[in-house]
Amino acid sequence: MTLNTMWDLSSEDITKLHEATLDLFETTGIGFLCDEAIEVFKANGFRVEDHTVFFTEAQIAKALESCPSSFTVYARNEKNNVVIGGGEPVFSPIYGPPHVVDFDDNLRRGTLDDYHTLTKLAQSLPNQDMVGYLLCDPSDVESTKAHLHMLYSSMVYSDKPFMGASTQADKGVEDMMQMGEIIFDCDREYLKEHPFSISLINSLTPLRYEEQSIKALMACARNRQPMLIASLVTGGATGPISMGGTAVLQNAEVLAGIVLAQLITPGTPVIYGCASGIMDMRTVVVSLGAPEFQKIQRIGVQLGHHYGLPCRGGGGLTESCDVDAQAGMESMSATLTAMDRGVDFVQHASGCVSSYLAASFNKLVFDDEVCGYGRDMRKKPDLTDEGLALDVIKEVGPGGEYLTNMHTAMHCRDAAWMPELAFRGGLDSYFASGKPQYKDAVRERGMKLVENFKMPAIDEAIKAKLDAFMKENG
Amino acid sequence: MTLNTMWDLSSEDITKLHEATLDLFETTGIGFLCDEAIEVFKANGFRVEDHTVFFTEAQIAKALESCPSSFTVYARNEKNNVVIGGGEPVFSPIYGPPHVVDFDDNLRRGTLDDYHTLTKLAQSLPNQDMVGYLLCDPSDVESTKAHLHMLYSSMVYSDKPFMGASTQADKGVEDMMQMGEIIFDCDREYLKEHPFSISLINSLTPLRYEEQSIKALMACARNRQPMLIASLVTGGATGPISMGGTAVLQNAEVLAGIVLAQLITPGTPVIYGCASGIMDMRTVVVSLGAPEFQKIQRIGVQLGHHYGLPCRGGGGLTESCDVDAQAGMESMSATLTAMDRGVDFVQHASGCVSSYLAASFNKLVFDDEVCGYGRDMRKKPDLTDEGLALDVIKEVGPGGEYLTNMHTAMHCRDAAWMPELAFRGGLDSYFASGKPQYKDAVRERGMKLVENFKMPAIDEAIKAKLDAFMKENG
Repeated sequence: MTLNTMWDLSSEDITKLHEATLDLFETTGIGFLCDEAIEVFKANGFRVEDHTVFFTEAQIAKALESCPSSFTVYARNEKNNVVIGGGEPVFSPIYGPPHVVDFDDNLRRGTLDDYHTLTKLAQSLPNQDMVGYLLCDPSDVESTKAHLHMLYSSMVYSDKPFMGASTQADKGVEDMMQMGEIIFDCDREYLKEHPFSISLINSLTPLRYEEQSIKALMACARNRQPMLIASLVTGGATGPISMGGTAVLQNAEVLAGIVLAQLITPGTPVIYGCASGIMDMRTVVVSLGAPEFQKIQRIGVQLGHHYGLPCRGGGGLTESCDVDAQAGMESMSATLTAMDRGVDFVQHASGCVSSYLAASFNKLVFDDEVCGYGRDMRKKPDLTDEGLALDVIKEVGPGGEYLTNMHTAMHCRDAAWMPELAFRGGLDSYFASGKPQYKDAVRERGMKLVENFKMPAIDEAIKAKLDAFMKENG
Repeated sequence: MTLNTMWDLSSEDITKLHEATLDLFETTGIGFLCDEAIEVFKANGFRVEDHTVFFTEAQIAKALESCPSSFTVYARNEKNNVVIGGGEPVFSPIYGPPHVVDFDDNLRRGTLDDYHTLTKLAQSLPNQDMVGYLLCDPSDVESTKAHLHMLYSSMVYSDKPFMGASTQADKGVEDMMQMGEIIFDCDREYLKEHPFSISLINSLTPLRYEEQSIKALMACARNRQPMLIASLVTGGATGPISMGGTAVLQNAEVLAGIVLAQLITPGTPVIYGCASGIMDMRTVVVSLGAPEFQKIQRIGVQLGHHYGLPCRGGGGLTESCDVDAQAGMESMSATLTAMDRGVDFVQHASGCVSSYLAASFNKLVFDDEVCGYGRDMRKKPDLTDEGLALDVIKEVGPGGEYLTNMHTAMHCRDAAWMPELAFRGGLDSYFASGKPQYKDAVRERGMKLVENFKMPAIDEAIKAKLDAFMKENG
């Protein structure tokens, strides 16, 4: 019989994908639309034509060799430090949406107040290991200063590690480093050894990086701040409509960005970022909850791990605009695929609706439960003698009961994962109590978290310095 | 770095679980509460004490050797034949609930009319490969004759294969065989070679089989009709609260049933059935959408496949009573786990709410989409030259577009799975059109399928014979 577990890449597949990538590197190259980067590539002996850079297998291999396979991101509360590539997934909330959907299902352009609400939720929820950057776009603050306000939100409303400011080129990164020096009360060299952020660098698909991203990348690398270097191909629009082609294109773009980071500072921590999907040609929408997204993720993560890199994946991605059954199935699929593949860093782990277009307060709360479920799935059941409980089974014997057995009492608290939101009241109680809506439970939990939010403790002197920095720059 | 995909059983784990099972077989035994079965065991040289049967490793091995690793279940429309253990999952709808929840969310005891509605839905939906038995309990027909009406529903309202009548001991199976002779217009020997049903046989946990089930099992085996031999342990109540202990108990019960089937007729097709979960000790409810259920499934399927048996698993299981985000996440988790593990037969693939307690019309329609999604996830992306599309990537080059490329046009229909229900309209359209509810789309699809249902073609003479049989017996 066929055992028939889900497909993986064979070593031939990996070779094929890798060789196709090398072929692109040697024949087509990658556009780096930034003179400063071009100079770096030239100085390191790369073949360059105008703004197109070509890569040899040896150059790729050398860069990969210098990438750490795991690294720590430090929080101002050391209990919240996270290790990327350490064996457990790290969950980080939504990144990048212009809009928010609030607890009452109102859609609007995000505001700074919304931003703080999202930070408070991510700070409060047990399965979000980090807080964001660009949790939403705070449209009511000046766009050139928004990054300062978002960083301030992460630093003051949270004591978890956070995503970095890569939206204002090198200026944003420099501001972040200065603020980092304040909150960690240290110098720049300390921060290089104790990175406190992960910055998202996206390629400009197909096969290019634009100037602002490159400058942010180079600034992060100079400061040895970790980066998620990601490609977001839309198969059928910015890349081939076939999943294999999309994976090759994604691989080339991600590796090229990683090479530049390693040329600036060898050993800069990077995450291999898979974020590509295929367009639904009927609606001209990239649906990130679709199977194609998960399949490209499966390919990407296996490739990234083959290169020895920590990988990004998953997250509560959905095309639904609501916390409904579609959102439930799609978010679980993306999250469980990430858990199954051993994804190291889960971007957009919570809060996403409409495929990145909006951050939903309710969805963020819901997804935290999906993250908890997914994290628990990775815990292998105890198969020691205590777990197999053979003596108990013998003692109880045929036709007996276990409810009053000491083994049950001993393990009643550790045997099962306990959801915060799931209805487990039974059929009669559900109908007798007027069909309590799951979404109401989600909303209620979220509103309570915000209402009862307590600012994490912060040294008064540090807070004063940070406020002074904001007064001067913000 | 740790590659770190989801856990599997190691070969040591399998040995440990197998040896624990053998230990139970030799020291504690399995109760078979049926004299006829006891005689069979005695005649075959098994050690028996009163109604407890003990098994040796050799006796288990001999039985496993005679089980087919795959088999066909024949439909009256041969296009609908299914192969169990052939490499692709076979989806079968909900089994066993006393209640139904109709399209308008009314809860009631099931009726025969509801039963036909559920059959029509399973017949019409593209991802249900079989129709049911006990889709709901038709409470308005005499209980000793209900099995005839359910079989008639499967035979006349559907031309897919169906679940067998194992609820009326050997009498139910004999009636099913007689009705089978009518619809296949053949003799008994033909049906033994061309099985047309899968009957569910459950153990009476812990460590027993009760008389009615044993009689049904023996009758199915005499007629060489396939059986799903399943154990439904409730960890903490009818079994150990630890997942490992539950898996051992389940394994012993399932294997013991399989041995009896093989003693009656070696080669009788059987499916290894994992259906066990752990009780939520706060609510005293077995939640089948919980991670523990999926973990026990992971253990069970790997064990069953280790024994060379086709395995049951998964399905759209949830503790939610509605088609909501909880139902979505839990149904996807169970289904995707089954797809990931290569489950051969997915029982309760659709329609389940409140952990088996009710068949929901809307949930059945929703779950069919989850099944389609899950089935698609198993399709590995094309990594041939056409799939990798390297020439296309080179031709488009850095900064180009793929929308107008011939490769996109060629593959726009085969590149992506197309959902029937998922909202992919985008954020603006969703809010501009009054937040169309996903559940309404589900309900509308279901009601249309029932409204436009056409009876599958059936030979008039056969139909007349079947009606005459029902008039005499039903």
